[in-house]
Amino acid sequence: MYFDLLNPENKSLVVLSGGMDSTTLLKDVRDTLHGGDPTKVWAISFDYNQKHRKELECAILTCRDLLVDHRIVPIPMLNDLAPSALTRKDWKVPTGHYEDETMKQTVVPNRNMVMISLAVSYAINLKADYLFVGVHSGDHAIYPDCRPSFYSAMQDAIMRCDWHEILLRAPYLDIDKNKICKRGVDLNVDYGLTWTCYEGKYLACGKCGSCVERLEAFEYAGVSDPVKYE
Amino acid sequence: MYFDLLNPENKSLVVLSGGMDSTTLLKDVRDTLHGGDPTKVWAISFDYNQKHRKELECAILTCRDLLVDHRIVPIPMLNDLAPSALTRKDWKVPTGHYEDETMKQTVVPNRNMVMISLAVSYAINLKADYLFVGVHSGDHAIYPDCRPSFYSAMQDAIMRCDWHEILLRAPYLDIDKNKICKRGVDLNVDYGLTWTCYEGKYLACGKCGSCVERLEAFEYAGVSDPVKYE
Repeated sequence: MYFDLLNPENKSLVVLSGGMDSTTLLKDVRDTLHGGDPTKVWAISFDYNQKHRKELECAILTCRDLLVDHRIVPIPMLNDLAPSALTRKDWKVPTGHYEDETMKQTVVPNRNMVMISLAVSYAINLKADYLFVGVHSGDHAIYPDCRPSFYSAMQDAIMRCDWHEILLRAPYLDIDKNKICKRGVDLNVDYGLTWTCYEGKYLACGKCGSCVERLEAFEYAGVSDPVKYE
Repeated sequence: MYFDLLNPENKSLVVLSGGMDSTTLLKDVRDTLHGGDPTKVWAISFDYNQKHRKELECAILTCRDLLVDHRIVPIPMLNDLAPSALTRKDWKVPTGHYEDETMKQTVVPNRNMVMISLAVSYAINLKADYLFVGVHSGDHAIYPDCRPSFYSAMQDAIMRCDWHEILLRAPYLDIDKNKICKRGVDLNVDYGLTWTCYEGKYLACGKCGSCVERLEAFEYAGVSDPVKYE
């Protein structure tokens, strides 16, 4: 159901943060859409000065594990142009539930359009057919650039930005992190190679909105989280 | 007519390449929309490794001249992800007319979406109301991301990417470079502070598609081009 009408012989580029959602998506695209063939799949990650850079190490490890070609693109200018609690050392990451109003401080203004536009440049160069993003319904309330209407508009823009056509796909847009986690467990995703905590420490804090949401997802999926907490 | 229904008290961000079109637009926005008040206007330029980096020096000089706050944002990753004859030393810039098929080699894949998305991040941070781009009808045939339908789709995406609303405006979208030049002459734009040639030499080549189009525009406007040619 997530890859209806898509052709396994085509090429896919996946935006991979190194968190649970996009890591699940990468495995899903590789295994479900492309029948386990890693030569049809590329991954791209972005270093935007996020405090939780550990997610990038996880992205590297996951791509090694899945034999998927991977690029990390530094975009430090995003932090210069539009700071956020996710990127500035002197701003504290808020604690509490992921859907709380205070979590809006973690919005990196227009981050997703910036990342998608660079991914599209790369996809044009690769002559890829599909661009996948791991956004899900739990993000909608806090992050405006995670809402379905934003992605429809981006799809329109992407269809017009070049002579080469690329389909933007967000297969998890209507499901939440709980269901993604359950799906990932079925797909045998190695969640030990994912990072979710917004704090950049050695162990996950277990208290920020991101950690709280992650822990709920593992409880829902009925498995224990392989990541270690403080 | 170019700024219908826009409020002079609002804030404007202008994407400035340092070429004729966006330089004319910057002066137009400052003088026509904001009545000459430079405190309502910001400019942003991008260093994407273009061979014609001289345009960035021109952008600096124009903003000094107009007293407009200016930022240059380096985006070297665009060249890494998607090379073009405009950015790679080992690819030759084609000569001939601007609308020739060979000019397609000068397409930088998805350049405009990348630049606009970063400009939007900055506009959100500035709490700017309007984002202006200097694209015009002569660009449509060669550059897919210069067509009106691309800009309508981008406007939709921009309205959805953040809680803060920004209007994207491309006032010259339906006119050509000839008319822009005529308008600029009326607005008293200093075209000595603009750069158009795609080659990165000390003098303009007069032969690349860009130069040919520029020379035609000055002929149409009935004035001589202050820039020196080989």
